[in-house]
Amino acid sequence: MSREGAALPDPPAKGRKALGSRHLRSVPLERAYQLIEPGPVVLLATSQRGIPNVMAMSWHMMVEFTPPQIACIVSNRNHSFAALKRTKECVIAIPPAEFAKTVVAIGNCSGADTDKFARFGLATRAARHVAPPLLLDCFANLECRVVDTRMVSAYCMFVLEVVHAWIDPQRRDARTIHHQGWGRFAVDGQHIRLRSGKA
Amino acid sequence: MSREGAALPDPPAKGRKALGSRHLRSVPLERAYQLIEPGPVVLLATSQRGIPNVMAMSWHMMVEFTPPQIACIVSNRNHSFAALKRTKECVIAIPPAEFAKTVVAIGNCSGADTDKFARFGLATRAARHVAPPLLLDCFANLECRVVDTRMVSAYCMFVLEVVHAWIDPQRRDARTIHHQGWGRFAVDGQHIRLRSGKA
Repeated sequence: MSREGAALPDPPAKGRKALGSRHLRSVPLERAYQLIEPGPVVLLATSQRGIPNVMAMSWHMMVEFTPPQIACIVSNRNHSFAALKRTKECVIAIPPAEFAKTVVAIGNCSGADTDKFARFGLATRAARHVAPPLLLDCFANLECRVVDTRMVSAYCMFVLEVVHAWIDPQRRDARTIHHQGWGRFAVDGQHIRLRSGKA
Repeated sequence: MSREGAALPDPPAKGRKALGSRHLRSVPLERAYQLIEPGPVVLLATSQRGIPNVMAMSWHMMVEFTPPQIACIVSNRNHSFAALKRTKECVIAIPPAEFAKTVVAIGNCSGADTDKFARFGLATRAARHVAPPLLLDCFANLECRVVDTRMVSAYCMFVLEVVHAWIDPQRRDARTIHHQGWGRFAVDGQHIRLRSGKA
């Protein structure tokens, strides 16, 4: 979702307004893996010199439970790459399926020439520990710091540590989307429970 | 899914037998990412001194399209760790949702004291390029070689290169499972298509 493409329509302004009043709840850090391990498409927010940006991302995985650490690939062709490398801060936000059109539209344009927050009317709130904003259209937000850049030159791979986790308690059971390539996404369907260990 | 737990019943032997006749089709390597990027629970097969083993895994991501490269975390508490580190070969197999119970059961016991292939009656076929077997209960199999071990000591992270990809054409639209922690899985539901770039 990194190439240029036609913009998709924003959700109605009415819906946006309501987001401003959302209450976010802190989640214990040791539960952060439950948001990343299922492999949803996420949004990655960065901020450089006071200018925020956001991209869509599907190449990420957990690397440690406690403290929660996430590895992700941010291509150096993405405008977000330089901001992430320099500021070492980001927010990973997890969008619900209803937000899929906007997620794809965010992935189809570049922060190099587009203020995506204005273009898509994204609702935000200041994060607690990092400069990039929380995304209120998403049901979960993870404030992250880059803790390892050793694999950036080889793979554009950053290792992040989650320093604060937020969920919107009204949408804690939101369904996520999983990218199967070329704009095809699987949406979470049925949930099943099977006796297993932690990971 | 790495702790001890009760075994779950195998699928009926009848179903197993039928798997032996399955025809697998090679998939162009540049399409391998479409199987991993959505973040399904996968099985990782290894083989050391002629003894195969298999574990369940959810911590993996794509790192490159071409050649297809995958990063994954295999804890050094897993019996598979030593085999992967020493032999530098594995098969990543992607199970359909119907196989979830067995996937969890595979994750709940250890190859240190269990022949999981016998215990769960797993149907296998020899891979083309690597020693670990293909798993015929899965709808896709990726033969992989470890190409980077620099992050093994820090994160138990291996970078794999896919050297051959197989799908079962009769089950190419199989639904996968995504682990949300503590034995809760989301099964793929609806599929949506939205105009986007490649990744």
